[in-house]
Amino acid sequence: MQLGMVGLGRMGANLVRRLMRGGHTCVVYDVNPAAVGELEGEGATGAASLADFVAQLDGPRAIWLMLPAAIVEETLDTLVPLLSSGDTVIDGGNSYYRDDITRAQKLARSGLHYVDCGTSGGVWGLDRGYCLMIGGETDVVDRLDPIFKTIAPGIGTAEPTPSRPADATGTAPEGYLHCGPNGAGHFVKMVHNGVEYGMMAAIAEGLSIIKHANAGQVDRVVDAETTPLRDPWAYQYDINVGEVAEVWRRGSVVGSWLVDLIADAFAASPDLAQFSGRVSDSGEGRWTVLAAVDEGVPAPVITTALYERLQSRQLGEFTDQICSAMRSEFGGHAEKK
Amino acid sequence: MQLGMVGLGRMGANLVRRLMRGGHTCVVYDVNPAAVGELEGEGATGAASLADFVAQLDGPRAIWLMLPAAIVEETLDTLVPLLSSGDTVIDGGNSYYRDDITRAQKLARSGLHYVDCGTSGGVWGLDRGYCLMIGGETDVVDRLDPIFKTIAPGIGTAEPTPSRPADATGTAPEGYLHCGPNGAGHFVKMVHNGVEYGMMAAIAEGLSIIKHANAGQVDRVVDAETTPLRDPWAYQYDINVGEVAEVWRRGSVVGSWLVDLIADAFAASPDLAQFSGRVSDSGEGRWTVLAAVDEGVPAPVITTALYERLQSRQLGEFTDQICSAMRSEFGGHAEKK
Amino acid sequence: MQLGMVGLGRMGANLVRRLMRGGHTCVVYDVNPAAVGELEGEGATGAASLADFVAQLDGPRAIWLMLPAAIVEETLDTLVPLLSSGDTVIDGGNSYYRDDITRAQKLARSGLHYVDCGTSGGVWGLDRGYCLMIGGETDVVDRLDPIFKTIAPGIGTAEPTPSRPADATGTAPEGYLHCGPNGAGHFVKMVHNGVEYGMMAAIAEGLSIIKHANAGQVDRVVDAETTPLRDPWAYQYDINVGEVAEVWRRGSVVGSWLVDLIADAFAASPDLAQFSGRVSDSGEGRWTVLAAVDEGVPAPVITTALYERLQSRQLGEFTDQICSAMRSEFGGHAEKK
Amino acid sequence: MQLGMVGLGRMGANLVRRLMRGGHTCVVYDVNPAAVGELEGEGATGAASLADFVAQLDGPRAIWLMLPAAIVEETLDTLVPLLSSGDTVIDGGNSYYRDDITRAQKLARSGLHYVDCGTSGGVWGLDRGYCLMIGGETDVVDRLDPIFKTIAPGIGTAEPTPSRPADATGTAPEGYLHCGPNGAGHFVKMVHNGVEYGMMAAIAEGLSIIKHANAGQVDRVVDAETTPLRDPWAYQYDINVGEVAEVWRRGSVVGSWLVDLIADAFAASPDLAQFSGRVSDSGEGRWTVLAAVDEGVPAPVITTALYERLQSRQLGEFTDQICSAMRSEFGGHAEKK
Repeated sequence: MQLGMVGLGRMGANLVRRLMRGGHTCVVYDVNPAAVGELEGEGATGAASLADFVAQLDGPRAIWLMLPAAIVEETLDTLVPLLSSGDTVIDGGNSYYRDDITRAQKLARSGLHYVDCGTSGGVWGLDRGYCLMIGGETDVVDRLDPIFKTIAPGIGTAEPTPSRPADATGTAPEGYLHCGPNGAGHFVKMVHNGVEYGMMAAIAEGLSIIKHANAGQVDRVVDAETTPLRDPWAYQYDINVGEVAEVWRRGSVVGSWLVDLIADAFAASPDLAQFSGRVSDSGEGRWTVLAAVDEGVPAPVITTALYERLQSRQLGEFTDQICSAMRSEFGGHAEKK
Repeated sequence: MQLGMVGLGRMGANLVRRLMRGGHTCVVYDVNPAAVGELEGEGATGAASLADFVAQLDGPRAIWLMLPAAIVEETLDTLVPLLSSGDTVIDGGNSYYRDDITRAQKLARSGLHYVDCGTSGGVWGLDRGYCLMIGGETDVVDRLDPIFKTIAPGIGTAEPTPSRPADATGTAPEGYLHCGPNGAGHFVKMVHNGVEYGMMAAIAEGLSIIKHANAGQVDRVVDAETTPLRDPWAYQYDINVGEVAEVWRRGSVVGSWLVDLIADAFAASPDLAQFSGRVSDSGEGRWTVLAAVDEGVPAPVITTALYERLQSRQLGEFTDQICSAMRSEFGGHAEKK
Repeated sequence: MQLGMVGLGRMGANLVRRLMRGGHTCVVYDVNPAAVGELEGEGATGAASLADFVAQLDGPRAIWLMLPAAIVEETLDTLVPLLSSGDTVIDGGNSYYRDDITRAQKLARSGLHYVDCGTSGGVWGLDRGYCLMIGGETDVVDRLDPIFKTIAPGIGTAEPTPSRPADATGTAPEGYLHCGPNGAGHFVKMVHNGVEYGMMAAIAEGLSIIKHANAGQVDRVVDAETTPLRDPWAYQYDINVGEVAEVWRRGSVVGSWLVDLIADAFAASPDLAQFSGRVSDSGEGRWTVLAAVDEGVPAPVITTALYERLQSRQLGEFTDQICSAMRSEFGGHAEKK
Repeated sequence: MQLGMVGLGRMGANLVRRLMRGGHTCVVYDVNPAAVGELEGEGATGAASLADFVAQLDGPRAIWLMLPAAIVEETLDTLVPLLSSGDTVIDGGNSYYRDDITRAQKLARSGLHYVDCGTSGGVWGLDRGYCLMIGGETDVVDRLDPIFKTIAPGIGTAEPTPSRPADATGTAPEGYLHCGPNGAGHFVKMVHNGVEYGMMAAIAEGLSIIKHANAGQVDRVVDAETTPLRDPWAYQYDINVGEVAEVWRRGSVVGSWLVDLIADAFAASPDLAQFSGRVSDSGEGRWTVLAAVDEGVPAPVITTALYERLQSRQLGEFTDQICSAMRSEFGGHAEKK
């Protein structure tokens, strides 16, 4: 079927490519004409403006937005007046699920449909497929099924789940899922990213503990401020953490795509020297924590992983200064620099 | 080659089966004669006692222990006097890596070799292969290579790591790795389990947040002790968490064997009612935390996951009672039951 | 000066008593006539309804609300139409600071002033004084200074801060502080309670570790699921935790009112048997975490303390069941009950 | 009575001064002759060597060591051969309690007594008194009671605990406590410091959240990597955190010596600019975590506070690099510097 794509960054462009490979036709638009031109060269129909874009789509239109969360609102302000009753807008980015609820209500007043679609897969999705978590009205989501089916990885990309009943229905084994009404898609994607934070931190901490298994070989200053390592004999290992990541890829309980990726990163750069140690966070992790707190569901691991990222960017510095100041007050401790 | 196996529980028996499928011959012993008999029926040579077991093995012997950590020591006390210089004992269980160091030193005094081999794979390893993390002297580990190669999953069980140099050597892509001298294998396996705790907790917390996305539909008591949910409209979702686990299996960043497994568990039991919520911990998680603290490497996510398990078994109850008592003292708060 | 008090629970009634002791006159109202009658007997002027209450106050009126956060809004709905331009409403409860901002704006449209006043001190405040954290317009707060000064503990209740400049101004050493515009008072009080959660948890965890210093004397089941304690000789102490709390009250770095209180609780009940171990949370802790996440300030200790409370009420049970289910899947582990 | 003091740093010297003020006589030794000379000038008897020191003490001797934990062992190696049966050595520093157990056993073989005495109070103890947590044999501890009583703050330094029975015995209200056999004193002091870490972190995090209540005024970069603050209107406060600390000193639930101290630090330095944000840890915090893990008692707040200190010194950097590397792999995210 036909789909319009607004936003041709890494994710948007690859979604278009995967759809075209799957036999769909795509009309594409981006504020950057070069991005439009590139996809035109690959078979898409380019548009010079949002108005041009809308004009080239057959009704009822299906329009996918693949934009940074911060500019979805202003794009909709321009786009919505150009649309006709019965058209559908799909937000495939990382919008906050609460915005989905209010946007869907607003669009409904113009007879428009809204679908929120959390999209996971990163730069590898073109070949690997994207995992889709979808929120919206059932009939609207059903109508878009051919699109979702093509974008998703497909059932063959993993072994069947042994206990799944033979007569079980549903698209989850294809890699896409209608999670519920508007917002449900981005809610599940939001938590997915929270889980991702926790898994990444667990893997990273573990590999770091392995890296520092040589702690007994490293001299520590001995003074009133630093405790000596009591058992240096037990920390005399020089372990190749990249090879550890590689070996964990097969047969182990921690086998996962994230372990695959870190094995690759170590293969490319054994000391990871190009990474400064500053880890960004882009919204979903924070929102997951807010949801956990609102729900009253303890989420200590996910929250700790978020804070670890904030601390990697020294956002706890004032906290640390206060601790230092207290130590100075009660003990006359001057912190080492 | 020939291997002797002591301990024919789930793991030990399946290791034997996998080795025999791979063309090796096995001599087996267990305190439970029925376990011995079962493997005899599948082609193994059974032994009636440790002495009989040792007698049936060709020198230099290779003996694999697959026992609970708590009884390794006493088994060695009986076994070691029966062995001859040049024999090798492999501890494939979950021993503490520090015990490996002292045991290897002790065995060396009798001319014996010791190899510690962390073995991951659980009940699925027979078909899937086991991930092996190995510690010991290089020539001893090399000599056992045919055994490790057969037990491990093999290179075909995962996609190649793209950035791995074409001329890279090493067995990690086969699923087994010589990590370093004695203790290094169990050290890496210990941390592996710590990572496993963290990943499991991240997945579980996330699915729980999704399960409780209906918090706005549930009545909360409103009184001075309980804050009302400010935005009940934002928590009105009834999401099928089992289907969420299934959809995350393909194409998503959190794709992992643990997600595969929880999808299976939900397929078999949508409300997990048979699980009490008490989560055991079996040593490696605790030891990982001790190592992190000794090394001075922050491991907040792994540690938090450990504590979450302890709390699931109410081991923090006295702590909670003290908090309650303080609240009663300063605010006259009587905790609800 | 004259003050009207709405809400004569523990806190409201004691505020009235402390004000009357300090020479102020009070008009009082509560939905419960008995509470009104009791304070009339102590010298306050009682009111039979909100209308009667307003009628008995001289303009410009100063009215203090001491109510559960959940009913402040509806009380204001009734009260505001009865008031006159220039009157001031003080919310002394635990309202969310964001509500202060919107309420102040709403009241301003009727020519009314609004002051938010976080009040700490619990059941002991009558004699000890209450710590006040105040938000509102400067001239309005200044006009109420005699009220705040009387309620606050007073400068003599703690040693002077040595480094405080002799010419420093400000009321903080009296125990009350104008923190900023509307909401600032409850913001500071909110975080105060978050700090309180963290301090309580730290004290409680520590005393619990001391209580369990006898872990080496307690038998543990030894099986594949439970690691034995390696150094039982190091955990052979039976320490009286109540006496530890008492000794920490003098001269130690952890000396604090909370330690005073827990020493008292242990003196009254050495095993704290009347406390079930369920610890409530009443809003401020959750809001503190939301603020930390919004600000991007890591607050792992405060957040962990909040989650510890949620876990004390088994709100993480589904999370734990999921972990149990995964363990069952990969290892065939049946959790002990 | 007479006491010998070895180690005349800040703590040791002030202990001597407090004892002399209380009418005791002191023989003093330090490797630094100037420290000896200074106390001689204040009335102590100086010694030129450990042998001279021992010779000047009357038997049975009472010798207090106030030394960094790392040099206690070597000092004992020199000191013990000089002593006579019946003499007592008190370790008043921050030794690991397990060392106390082995040292006491070793000294007992020479007929010597050993007392471990955790000493809290910092640079303020001279005037304020020191909180003492004592381990050792009952008769030996009893004999030293006059010393402990003088060093401790004394009963008048805090209000009586209301619920403490009038006929309760014990020295805890004086500020010193015999906690149990050898090691029990340092065990309690160790946990005390763990509690201190947690309380400090809670206070510091809270004040930091208050400091950043202006987050809505600060521009944030808006891009795909950074989520915009949704409610900037709610974070518009410029709050004086030093005054907040001061106001919390009186009447609030968080009132504590640590709050007193941080109020003083802010009074001296409103922006704490002289503190780099690196926070040391000196052993007890780590040991507290090890004990919690061994005992199976969850201590998430204390542990988190320890890790926060480690992170303040960038000890989690490799962990962060690994997370960054994974983000780069799956999303092409280049971390901002």
